[in-house]
Amino acid sequence: MKKYHVVGIGNAMVDVLAEASESFLAENGIGKGIMQLIDMDRAVDLYARVGPAREVSGGSAANTIAGIAHLGGRTAYVGKVKDDQLGAIFAHDLRAQGADYDTALAPGSHPDETGRCIVLVTPDGERSMNTYLGVTEHLAASDIDPAQMADAAWIYLEGYRFDGPESHEAFAKAIGAAKGAGGRVALTLSDPFCVERHRDAFRAMIANDVDLLFANRAEIMSMYQTEDFEAAMAAGAADVETLACTEGDRGAHLFSGGQRVNVPAVPTDIVDATGAGDLFAGAFLWGLTHDVDLKTCGQMGCLAASEVISHIGARPEADLRSLFAAHGLI
Amino acid sequence: MKKYHVVGIGNAMVDVLAEASESFLAENGIGKGIMQLIDMDRAVDLYARVGPAREVSGGSAANTIAGIAHLGGRTAYVGKVKDDQLGAIFAHDLRAQGADYDTALAPGSHPDETGRCIVLVTPDGERSMNTYLGVTEHLAASDIDPAQMADAAWIYLEGYRFDGPESHEAFAKAIGAAKGAGGRVALTLSDPFCVERHRDAFRAMIANDVDLLFANRAEIMSMYQTEDFEAAMAAGAADVETLACTEGDRGAHLFSGGQRVNVPAVPTDIVDATGAGDLFAGAFLWGLTHDVDLKTCGQMGCLAASEVISHIGARPEADLRSLFAAHGLI
Repeated sequence: MKKYHVVGIGNAMVDVLAEASESFLAENGIGKGIMQLIDMDRAVDLYARVGPAREVSGGSAANTIAGIAHLGGRTAYVGKVKDDQLGAIFAHDLRAQGADYDTALAPGSHPDETGRCIVLVTPDGERSMNTYLGVTEHLAASDIDPAQMADAAWIYLEGYRFDGPESHEAFAKAIGAAKGAGGRVALTLSDPFCVERHRDAFRAMIANDVDLLFANRAEIMSMYQTEDFEAAMAAGAADVETLACTEGDRGAHLFSGGQRVNVPAVPTDIVDATGAGDLFAGAFLWGLTHDVDLKTCGQMGCLAASEVISHIGARPEADLRSLFAAHGLI
Repeated sequence: MKKYHVVGIGNAMVDVLAEASESFLAENGIGKGIMQLIDMDRAVDLYARVGPAREVSGGSAANTIAGIAHLGGRTAYVGKVKDDQLGAIFAHDLRAQGADYDTALAPGSHPDETGRCIVLVTPDGERSMNTYLGVTEHLAASDIDPAQMADAAWIYLEGYRFDGPESHEAFAKAIGAAKGAGGRVALTLSDPFCVERHRDAFRAMIANDVDLLFANRAEIMSMYQTEDFEAAMAAGAADVETLACTEGDRGAHLFSGGQRVNVPAVPTDIVDATGAGDLFAGAFLWGLTHDVDLKTCGQMGCLAASEVISHIGARPEADLRSLFAAHGLI
């Protein structure tokens, strides 16, 4: 038996969550519903403009791994923070959730700080993300422990992590070690603009290495450069063994081995959409690594996503296993 | 007209909120429902034991001032943080709420860090506070700007702030400047064990300078060293012009100029009791500085307290003025 069900690699971030109006987004040139990269100066300027905020550990793959750990899965995370107060918060929250996390800290002398994401939540619950990567973009191949990757049934790669100087080498090293030991590879496309930046690299990885692809509607259409959602999903389904495509309140479309299953979303009042896709992936992967059938994996994903959007913050607060049981999924 | 309705002085803290079981409190020797002072080693050890947490700006008087600012009152805060990431969060949140905050930062070279309070919330919503004071206990008389105090209709003094080497001098300077310009003085007793530590100093201040005293049941009984709540309130009412005594779900008892008014609590599901007393004081002071009668001030206090205990975190999330309007208070 492998030590880990899933090892995730991504950008380690602390989320700074603040409410904002539609007009605030417009006045400050913030694209709604997407992730935009910002530098430290912009981060400082923007932070000074937003109202009272709250800080919670985030990072897309880290949220997914936290979800798997919350469900009792054996899991670990790789992503870089600095030896500073926000880095300590990030590390604490992940370990306290039950995930292993041992990536070397960037030293206190590093000119950048722990990455943070200023998440502006509009009254409709949509989140617009302004990401200062900080030290997390410097995750290097040397941070990847091949023995850890070899001991993972699945590795889970975050599309956002393709930004940064050594990301491709780091991912190649992780994939080689995992696949060499019979492990499998899941990738999330993260964001349509992230797909724009890294389409060729994603294409090559999908063609060669990816067994399970997570995407939402905008991402899969960007990936396959079509406005036809069905055509994009068909292309994705042909490229990988399993495709899990989410479509907001329309639920998820699952493709695997010629089979197609649609799973409805679980209705809820959206307070903060941050983490919906991350927790979908976490619950789906937990199911997949616990011999759960495809449709039920999707239902678990939709249920976990509905829980996380019903409150502020991108990590589960309710007991997801109890929720699964209440819905007859376990 | 004075520039400020209220200027508050207190311990500047970031709250680290985590859920905990009753048995966790027992196993770790944590007194339930009270504030206990801890050193940095204990803070690090305890933080490592608690589950995933979230960080929000706190500090008792700072919560009160944030509430007054939220209501549109003209207000300022004095309390010390360090030039570090948690200090930046604290300062941001207070200013973003609309309060002035200009206390000199402790420099990055200071051996202590920004103060934090590990708040353990048990399933009953009660909070048990473990406070690492850090740099905030070093607030000195030199941090008090007499011109600012002279420009305040009220100054609001936090009992917790009596811990620390130069606190008494700082308070004396603030009181002198405020009273010299016709300002008035409010004091909150903060915590029964805080009263134990500083009873003589509180007694002297109440006898000589305090116009408005805030206390809860346990605090007023500790102050007057009696197990008889009514006797304790009578003693307090005799010592100050106005006494506002809260009693949890039994509401508040108000005494002023021979008048006594009882105001019922506003029933709510308690999620996190942190900040209930702070927001009672904030709403009460806002009313008092806006020509609101005693009973309505108390009703505003109880309503604000009920809002803040209905969610995680010690600062208001709902629009308190809308709440007041919905209840016919404004």
